[in-house]
Amino acid sequence: MDRRSFIRRGALAGAGAAALASPAVAQDRITWRMVTTWPKNFPGLGVGAQRMADRITAASGGRLTVQVYSAGEMVPPLQSLDAVIDGTAEMSHGAAYYWQNKSTALNYFTGVPYGMTAGELAAWVRHLGGQELWDEVYDQFGVQAFLSGNTGTQAGGWFREELTGLDSLKGLRFRTPGLGGRVWEKLGATVTNMAAGEIFQALQSGALDAAEFVGPYNDLALGFHQVAKNYYFPSFVEPGLATELVVDKAKFQELPDDLQAIVRDVCQAEYDSVSSDFVANDPRALKTLVEDHGVQVRQFPEEILEAGAGAAMEIIAELRDSGDEMTRKVTEHFIESLNMMRTRTEGNDLSFIQARARYFTL
Amino acid sequence: MDRRSFIRRGALAGAGAAALASPAVAQDRITWRMVTTWPKNFPGLGVGAQRMADRITAASGGRLTVQVYSAGEMVPPLQSLDAVIDGTAEMSHGAAYYWQNKSTALNYFTGVPYGMTAGELAAWVRHLGGQELWDEVYDQFGVQAFLSGNTGTQAGGWFREELTGLDSLKGLRFRTPGLGGRVWEKLGATVTNMAAGEIFQALQSGALDAAEFVGPYNDLALGFHQVAKNYYFPSFVEPGLATELVVDKAKFQELPDDLQAIVRDVCQAEYDSVSSDFVANDPRALKTLVEDHGVQVRQFPEEILEAGAGAAMEIIAELRDSGDEMTRKVTEHFIESLNMMRTRTEGNDLSFIQARARYFTL
Repeated sequence: MDRRSFIRRGALAGAGAAALASPAVAQDRITWRMVTTWPKNFPGLGVGAQRMADRITAASGGRLTVQVYSAGEMVPPLQSLDAVIDGTAEMSHGAAYYWQNKSTALNYFTGVPYGMTAGELAAWVRHLGGQELWDEVYDQFGVQAFLSGNTGTQAGGWFREELTGLDSLKGLRFRTPGLGGRVWEKLGATVTNMAAGEIFQALQSGALDAAEFVGPYNDLALGFHQVAKNYYFPSFVEPGLATELVVDKAKFQELPDDLQAIVRDVCQAEYDSVSSDFVANDPRALKTLVEDHGVQVRQFPEEILEAGAGAAMEIIAELRDSGDEMTRKVTEHFIESLNMMRTRTEGNDLSFIQARARYFTL
Repeated sequence: MDRRSFIRRGALAGAGAAALASPAVAQDRITWRMVTTWPKNFPGLGVGAQRMADRITAASGGRLTVQVYSAGEMVPPLQSLDAVIDGTAEMSHGAAYYWQNKSTALNYFTGVPYGMTAGELAAWVRHLGGQELWDEVYDQFGVQAFLSGNTGTQAGGWFREELTGLDSLKGLRFRTPGLGGRVWEKLGATVTNMAAGEIFQALQSGALDAAEFVGPYNDLALGFHQVAKNYYFPSFVEPGLATELVVDKAKFQELPDDLQAIVRDVCQAEYDSVSSDFVANDPRALKTLVEDHGVQVRQFPEEILEAGAGAAMEIIAELRDSGDEMTRKVTEHFIESLNMMRTRTEGNDLSFIQARARYFTL
């Protein structure tokens, strides 16, 4: 029942207005808890989670007030999805690939090595059937997800030594998590994962030769540039990392239609806000890194890009053939959609940016 | 005054509920007229205007109901902005560069030759100060604009004959409007403008040698492929065409805060909806054009891309130096912002897409 009909029905019952209107208003105001996987004020993503909560609260006139709990405030970050499943929270802001132990198909809704850009991922989810597949995965857990942001193409990582080719990777101790880490392992690196707060120390002590985190906007604050001066681009293993808002599906469907619309609209608006925040602020941070901290911006050698693509193809084939039917279905849909969209990305967007890079200077 | 406080104040006045609640609800419902520059059901853009109206209506629970008038239904398309200024309508969905007779600065908020991609434009407007400049331009007319969609990189155009280089352009009769047309004029083409509905006939009769409209998604319906088989990419003169929602600023500011938030949120969500619609559906349409209609997809020769960049630089310098202070200010801000963002677009996004094009096939 929506708020309007609630009030109208109350009103038609004919009781005194003051006695009636107040409980109706009070009863109609909901507060939802949003747990997140991000530290408070984490550039782009943590800030985006808070802004999303504020926008839902504002657009609903406070009828749906969202309270944010940063990583660890209510539950540890990697229990955010479980918190929604078990009812501890109504919403979680994070990334789907954190829950790949629940379904490896979830990797695709965040991003996979050599996979979709931020624009392609939005098109797949919104216009080519990706959302329906995502719903099918999450229905098993009684939750629903919406895209809520994207970092765009990340940075490839910080390396103490310059890379000359594949030989430089043999035994290289590299902090890089997830499927991306598996790509680097196939290229010969010794991959480890560790929390963001531990990376700097490990680079400084020599326990790590290289580390990858997000991109300039996030990396600047962590100080890696003080130890490793070679900053490589692009992250072919993270061409875009999409974030998600997960909601308790039953509670979401009980919301009046207008509040459901507001949650959906704000999620989609935030996909644009977060994406464009990185487009605007990654280069600002990179300028500081280069001009104030002497960072060397470098491109990966071609043979690393090529071998990386081979490793990514193997990993995606492994996902497809892993025996999980849902993951096979999502993999095939993802590949088919990417193959269609890349004709435009590569035959039009790429050609334009190349021409602009070559010939246009103002 | 927002709806809640309106109802609460009414309630506290102590009249009977039935007598009070009904007029409150009635008085609180607003219908706004949205004129558009697009034909009804025009792929991507006309469809987007209708979807935006429906989303505002839905998210507001009908408190702000938006009625769409397609091009010509209420006013001729190119009088849409004037309709908002003179109060005939409360909203207009179109493109800022249609109103460059009011201020040439408005070109930048749609897109200029060799200028910003859809992602860069959103970042400029939302995070680097573009919106504030846009507000300054439109404040003179009592209106406010928000980004509401983007076509992404358009197609370069349909050519009866294959292009071998700049020589092919001498005297070529080319339908291409706006600043893009001025670029092509500098390259030697004889540029004309004509309405969409007249292009096919002119191509068929030989009155035109070439025509540019939008991209595959829109062009397919117009049948140009029946006459001109060479479809060139990319449109270096339209790397992204942003649409706008314009509102009567005074009326907008009188809306309760939650309705203002809903209009802003839906506009931003639609920027993503429309952009991703083109990412998904341009390649679908192009596949049909190639496989069912024998269209030849071609890339512009390098010397055309290079000369086009030179012409675009001249035109942007002419805008900057035209003597209009606001246009100078916007031009300089646009250039500075683009120069910063392109370090990321070209040093990271471009590198990734290039590597994927070279090495990744699934």
